[in-house]
Amino acid sequence: MTPVDRTFDIQLNELKKLVLAMGGHVETALDLATQALTKRQTERFAEVHKVEQAINEEHVKVDSACLHFLAMQGPVAKDLRFIFSIIKLNADLERMGDQAVNIAYTGKDYLNRESIPWPVEIEEMSRIVRLMVRESLDSFVREDVDLARKILLMDDDVDRRKDLVFKKLITYMRDNSQHIESAMDLILIARNLERLGDHATNIAEEVIFVSTGKDVRHGGKFS
Amino acid sequence: MTPVDRTFDIQLNELKKLVLAMGGHVETALDLATQALTKRQTERFAEVHKVEQAINEEHVKVDSACLHFLAMQGPVAKDLRFIFSIIKLNADLERMGDQAVNIAYTGKDYLNRESIPWPVEIEEMSRIVRLMVRESLDSFVREDVDLARKILLMDDDVDRRKDLVFKKLITYMRDNSQHIESAMDLILIARNLERLGDHATNIAEEVIFVSTGKDVRHGGKFS
Repeated sequence: MTPVDRTFDIQLNELKKLVLAMGGHVETALDLATQALTKRQTERFAEVHKVEQAINEEHVKVDSACLHFLAMQGPVAKDLRFIFSIIKLNADLERMGDQAVNIAYTGKDYLNRESIPWPVEIEEMSRIVRLMVRESLDSFVREDVDLARKILLMDDDVDRRKDLVFKKLITYMRDNSQHIESAMDLILIARNLERLGDHATNIAEEVIFVSTGKDVRHGGKFS
Repeated sequence: MTPVDRTFDIQLNELKKLVLAMGGHVETALDLATQALTKRQTERFAEVHKVEQAINEEHVKVDSACLHFLAMQGPVAKDLRFIFSIIKLNADLERMGDQAVNIAYTGKDYLNRESIPWPVEIEEMSRIVRLMVRESLDSFVREDVDLARKILLMDDDVDRRKDLVFKKLITYMRDNSQHIESAMDLILIARNLERLGDHATNIAEEVIFVSTGKDVRHGGKFS
């Protein structure tokens, strides 16, 4: 192996590590936001913002590393598709951090109001989405297309739960108009969780693209 | 100019044209969705789906063209940053198409229910966001950083209007619990419009990055 090749591999591995660390932070941010909300610990929302700052810093780092890698290594074929995918999933991870922060903001509003009955699906959505984040990135570094496909199915579970949350809370609002703000907060949080699932799905679709060259984003069929 | 240089410029211009066409389709999709909603023309929502299909096809084309360009031309420095930005704004434009379709879906639900008083800010948001789409892409192809900065301010206008829509509709729901679903539809539509504005803002931030090399995405300062 020539020194140039080694640099190539080292840089690629560094990039993978950075992306995995970022995914870990996204999971943490989401976990913190959900726990603060369900355990009514307002003070913990500040921790979500701290973790999001780390995600933002990693976002800038990954972008620079990708630009540098493209300029210096001129990757082709599969390696190029791999970098291409990192550029995109980096954007998804950064926006997942934003969504966790949105949950923290709305969660804070919610905890300042009177409590209302809590649809169990919200915590379930958070749990599934955290798993989706982890497994989408696992599928990415291991190029595990089967796992990536599993994530597309998990997203259907998230969407079903979001529909249930909406249904329950709209019914609740109709009979409890004094608690409309609280119900609306929970609806917006369910919406944020749905979007988090969408971003993890984008990552899984990228994995399928990078590994198979097939584009499944717009109704493309699996092989 | 060597033949290679010409290919480089021709491909770059083709890419710009493709991105502008895609932006035009996003504007059209949003305009159609808003008009169908405000003029109560349910049948026109189908047109939004057709335009979104065109956006999705362009999305795949732009991605392939970028991959091809990176592999064949090995751009560096500013040209590389330019391609890098196209990869990202392509994702933003595609998701704007999704948001227009979301508006069409929710709009269809809304038109099937009883009408409620319509917050004027919804149409205003749609108008501003369409302008943001056009001007963000104009700023991109002309590398007009001043125009890009203007877009960041327009997004504040969109957000302020979204807050007003929320406030008005929550008050309305409290006194008209029989119309909660209709009010919720309009809230979700305002939320979609807010997200459309966010995507245009992402594009403007990319323009600032590509032209100045400065990253303004996470609180980075303008020069």
